[in-house]
Amino acid sequence: MTAPIIDLRSDTVTKPDDRMRAAMAAAEVGDDVLDRDPTMARLEEQIAGLLGVEASLWVPSGSMGNIIALMLHVKRGDRFLATAASHVISNELGAGAWLAGGMPEPLPWDGGPGRPTAETLRAAIGGPQPYFGLYTTLLCLENTHNAAGGTVTPPDEHAELVAVAKEAGLTVHLDGARIWNASVALGLPPAALTAGADTVQVCLSKGLGAPVGSMVAGPAAFVEEARRARKMLGGGVRQGGVLAAAGLVALENIESLAQDHANARALADGLAELGWEVATPQTNIVMASVPDVAQALAQLQRVGVLAVPMAGRVRFVTHRDVSADDITEVLRRLEKE
Amino acid sequence: MTAPIIDLRSDTVTKPDDRMRAAMAAAEVGDDVLDRDPTMARLEEQIAGLLGVEASLWVPSGSMGNIIALMLHVKRGDRFLATAASHVISNELGAGAWLAGGMPEPLPWDGGPGRPTAETLRAAIGGPQPYFGLYTTLLCLENTHNAAGGTVTPPDEHAELVAVAKEAGLTVHLDGARIWNASVALGLPPAALTAGADTVQVCLSKGLGAPVGSMVAGPAAFVEEARRARKMLGGGVRQGGVLAAAGLVALENIESLAQDHANARALADGLAELGWEVATPQTNIVMASVPDVAQALAQLQRVGVLAVPMAGRVRFVTHRDVSADDITEVLRRLEKE
Amino acid sequence: MTAPIIDLRSDTVTKPDDRMRAAMAAAEVGDDVLDRDPTMARLEEQIAGLLGVEASLWVPSGSMGNIIALMLHVKRGDRFLATAASHVISNELGAGAWLAGGMPEPLPWDGGPGRPTAETLRAAIGGPQPYFGLYTTLLCLENTHNAAGGTVTPPDEHAELVAVAKEAGLTVHLDGARIWNASVALGLPPAALTAGADTVQVCLSKGLGAPVGSMVAGPAAFVEEARRARKMLGGGVRQGGVLAAAGLVALENIESLAQDHANARALADGLAELGWEVATPQTNIVMASVPDVAQALAQLQRVGVLAVPMAGRVRFVTHRDVSADDITEVLRRLEKE
Amino acid sequence: MTAPIIDLRSDTVTKPDDRMRAAMAAAEVGDDVLDRDPTMARLEEQIAGLLGVEASLWVPSGSMGNIIALMLHVKRGDRFLATAASHVISNELGAGAWLAGGMPEPLPWDGGPGRPTAETLRAAIGGPQPYFGLYTTLLCLENTHNAAGGTVTPPDEHAELVAVAKEAGLTVHLDGARIWNASVALGLPPAALTAGADTVQVCLSKGLGAPVGSMVAGPAAFVEEARRARKMLGGGVRQGGVLAAAGLVALENIESLAQDHANARALADGLAELGWEVATPQTNIVMASVPDVAQALAQLQRVGVLAVPMAGRVRFVTHRDVSADDITEVLRRLEKE
Repeated sequence: MTAPIIDLRSDTVTKPDDRMRAAMAAAEVGDDVLDRDPTMARLEEQIAGLLGVEASLWVPSGSMGNIIALMLHVKRGDRFLATAASHVISNELGAGAWLAGGMPEPLPWDGGPGRPTAETLRAAIGGPQPYFGLYTTLLCLENTHNAAGGTVTPPDEHAELVAVAKEAGLTVHLDGARIWNASVALGLPPAALTAGADTVQVCLSKGLGAPVGSMVAGPAAFVEEARRARKMLGGGVRQGGVLAAAGLVALENIESLAQDHANARALADGLAELGWEVATPQTNIVMASVPDVAQALAQLQRVGVLAVPMAGRVRFVTHRDVSADDITEVLRRLEKE
Repeated sequence: MTAPIIDLRSDTVTKPDDRMRAAMAAAEVGDDVLDRDPTMARLEEQIAGLLGVEASLWVPSGSMGNIIALMLHVKRGDRFLATAASHVISNELGAGAWLAGGMPEPLPWDGGPGRPTAETLRAAIGGPQPYFGLYTTLLCLENTHNAAGGTVTPPDEHAELVAVAKEAGLTVHLDGARIWNASVALGLPPAALTAGADTVQVCLSKGLGAPVGSMVAGPAAFVEEARRARKMLGGGVRQGGVLAAAGLVALENIESLAQDHANARALADGLAELGWEVATPQTNIVMASVPDVAQALAQLQRVGVLAVPMAGRVRFVTHRDVSADDITEVLRRLEKE
Repeated sequence: MTAPIIDLRSDTVTKPDDRMRAAMAAAEVGDDVLDRDPTMARLEEQIAGLLGVEASLWVPSGSMGNIIALMLHVKRGDRFLATAASHVISNELGAGAWLAGGMPEPLPWDGGPGRPTAETLRAAIGGPQPYFGLYTTLLCLENTHNAAGGTVTPPDEHAELVAVAKEAGLTVHLDGARIWNASVALGLPPAALTAGADTVQVCLSKGLGAPVGSMVAGPAAFVEEARRARKMLGGGVRQGGVLAAAGLVALENIESLAQDHANARALADGLAELGWEVATPQTNIVMASVPDVAQALAQLQRVGVLAVPMAGRVRFVTHRDVSADDITEVLRRLEKE
Repeated sequence: MTAPIIDLRSDTVTKPDDRMRAAMAAAEVGDDVLDRDPTMARLEEQIAGLLGVEASLWVPSGSMGNIIALMLHVKRGDRFLATAASHVISNELGAGAWLAGGMPEPLPWDGGPGRPTAETLRAAIGGPQPYFGLYTTLLCLENTHNAAGGTVTPPDEHAELVAVAKEAGLTVHLDGARIWNASVALGLPPAALTAGADTVQVCLSKGLGAPVGSMVAGPAAFVEEARRARKMLGGGVRQGGVLAAAGLVALENIESLAQDHANARALADGLAELGWEVATPQTNIVMASVPDVAQALAQLQRVGVLAVPMAGRVRFVTHRDVSADDITEVLRRLEKE
């Protein structure tokens, strides 16, 4: 292979660009454990505004953001609900269980959009109590939903699920690692997609291109406790302003996600023309059903295209380090195969 | 209501009979924490023999037996498999998660016999790894299966599931709280039903009639560690011989479970004649599908019959404190309604 | 050795007597998980009355009583205070840490009576905060104090320590495994020794002679939560009335502890005459300082007297299965050595 | 106060300099979760070499490095030993307890150099077993020791303590957050100070001036497991190379710590001349005993000098953002007071 590799494994592979690197190099910093790092503080305030909540906190990863939310929302032995294929269930090495002490109840996932209906949610919450004293206390939603293929939850469905959860006294945490993609796809501000959720986690290091960092957000009292939980987990950093500066630049990249979405549609259309069975992408994730995932990935790798297996399909993710021309090139290479 | 209540909620309601009480009163005892209580030691040896394993340990409840097995088999963050409706998933307040640190993966349950097929088990274990480093390390089986309606796993199916698990390097724990019922239903010794399982938990306080106590069993090295884990959980007792004596008498009651099974069939047949939709019982549990569970339970209570809701159905359990005549009386009362 | 062994290792070795066995055999029972066992309920009410609190709950061991209290009082990462040699620190396999999530802060113990002074307690609570966000939230007291040699905390000292703790916003848990001995030694009802403590744990299976069982007690809301925590730990039992009946008889044995105390003094006096360095016993525990603990224990064993090593000394415990004549015999055997 | 504040609270306040910022801006990066970030890989290799171990892993904080070591070394309920005032006991919000499941046993600290003697260590390990089955499995050392005042453990004492621990079958973890200061003070390479320790944690964000990052190091198999544990805790990052680049520059700053040490001595001498009771600093930490810590800190703040309370004393830390002239200025301001 001499042709350059085109990496569609994840939008996490995006590298900081020159503007972002310059911002990091110039960042005003302080000791964020002893005082508050000023650039961190600025980022945390800006994110809270974008999400329409009181406050937010920087964390080294989306996993830590979700873990902290679970730790603070769930008491030992409480049952929490999340779609079987969601990140908090499948991709966090059980932290929800052993760190937060919660008993996960995966909501059945049939390959659909990665969220319950009001009806299936009600059934999961309110069926005959599985046992004396097992309390169901938290619903985790994910928007866009990764394993379901970057699917977008529209505000009305989100509102209905939140309403069902609230009626039953549940707390709602939104894993919004790719909330920006949902926002752009819907043409709505992020705050319109967090309504009713008690807490939200969003990522800066996926499609937005920051090298490191996610945010967990919610009421000020929650964020204060989250700061302590972050310290417990070893996630407190010192001159984090160098990373927060990258995060502030990343926020300027939200609108450009539209290009990733266009690229995903072009990829899906092209693959379909080549005979692949592809779901129509709603954002920047293309899921292809193939007879043999491992074989398909090997075929892709032979032509210098990287993808990953996910939930029984091949997942391609478009991102700011992949251009429309790169997508054309991917299709050209596959056509020649 | 002047007619006596007939309690079919669970075989856990069985009370020690005179012979058992006499044995408790006469039990030879010692301090089981400092030394070993001699009657405890006798019971532990006898159970190990019955189950065909090296050693066993008394615990105050079946839940503690299962928790200890999970604690010793699962490392923080490991994924363990069990049918969605199984006791370790649904009835232990999340202890598997927060105590053992394991991430439960409920195997889908469609109302069938409460165990995976070899195929669904393979899919659950070996599908594309859900994520880097999430290890699947334990399979929990349950025989008979409570929420599925006292269903019996035949030895060949058990062997096949164990083989699939072992092939994938998994440990196998068998929740045999009602293994005695399976043994009697199949006409096979209990040891024939534990083959290949690394550890087993069995109950003395259900159909066998002991007031308190379960056993967790397996290799001698496991039981040694289990003794320490029991102490950690506060389950070590002193002159436990008084309870072990009851357990030894309970073991003489195994064969008489056949009467409970006959009673369950009579109940199911009678209910069916009255128009109830009833599954054919394999052991001592009768599950009835009704349009409205709460309403059905209320109707039963009006005529002095107690049952419980379970997994969307009404569950009746026959046991040694309910006679064939009592079952006739239950049906008579319902007929008159 | 043909002479009978005299077992002074612990008052936990006491065996149920005929009256207690008869009560167990005759106990009225029920399913304490589904309903409430009537004899359990009676015991729980009586203990609450004796301790001057709203409610109490039976648990299989004193360790479980303490663990439950820690689980409910301490949030993850909270610091709790207890004397270095106390049971919750040294004898519970770290359950306070890994189960309850609390960070133990052992208060220095110099071999004295096993409790802080108001001054050392204040220093431990209120010195310069060791770090941002480490909260100290619980004080555990122990009366009588085992490793300190069965020492009694008088009500005024108890009141002072509770006052210091409360002033700092701490919860207070009293490990009263041997509160009955303190009560008899002081000539005060047990309730006089629990004043101000939020929760209390007391044992029925030590000097009072029950085979199995301890109680954890406090406000009704605490006990309700404790019932759930007991289930989580696998400590819920079914027809526990057989054990509760023994507990009710055990409560009739409180006054007879005076004989154990007299025996302990006789033993201490006799040992002193034989040249042993012995602390004056306040209750039923005699601590002897010897040049070589292992050697002293071996010497004792040679003459058929059992004791245990504890906190660098030899511990003898008198109890209802050892008579005044037995103590004379112990001294006679040692004299002859 | 118009004069600039001189911040001696901690060496964690050091800000990245221009060279470091330039390195961050130019860093070669990759996705360290999916692949390995190349600059991260370079840093991890270089650190392993410096410490004389097989491998190392970047973590967001020293706390996470210590937590991971505890998680991997300690099984639930194991006892681990560390000096009472050490970071793992006092400054990590109990993570050792609730995350790792270990029962901390603080070794008594009398204000001395912050390490046990061979004799006190032996006593703590090997005294009469506190109880059946409480295993002591880990010794944590800290070099230099923060709360003791930046004290240096010489290699021979380190070797003796390690030997005592190993003889008893203990694992040894070295919290070397400031190992660089010990290395410079002794004129020995860092690897000379880690001999015999199974694992080591070192900080890049203290005196060496990196904005974010610590390393946990040891055998390759340990580091592999640590990578998974880091993911569990939410400490895995993507393009971490931007931080690793700063870390590589930080390693060039080791020798310059000698200036911080000289400044600390100058500060101590000057304070002593002004009548303060000051311990002779061994590295970059000056501890002053004052009648009233809060009052002393307030006095310092009035003249624009920042310090912190620690273990009952006032702690000053010199670092690369404070010059010899700044120290002269501190003394001048205090003289004028």
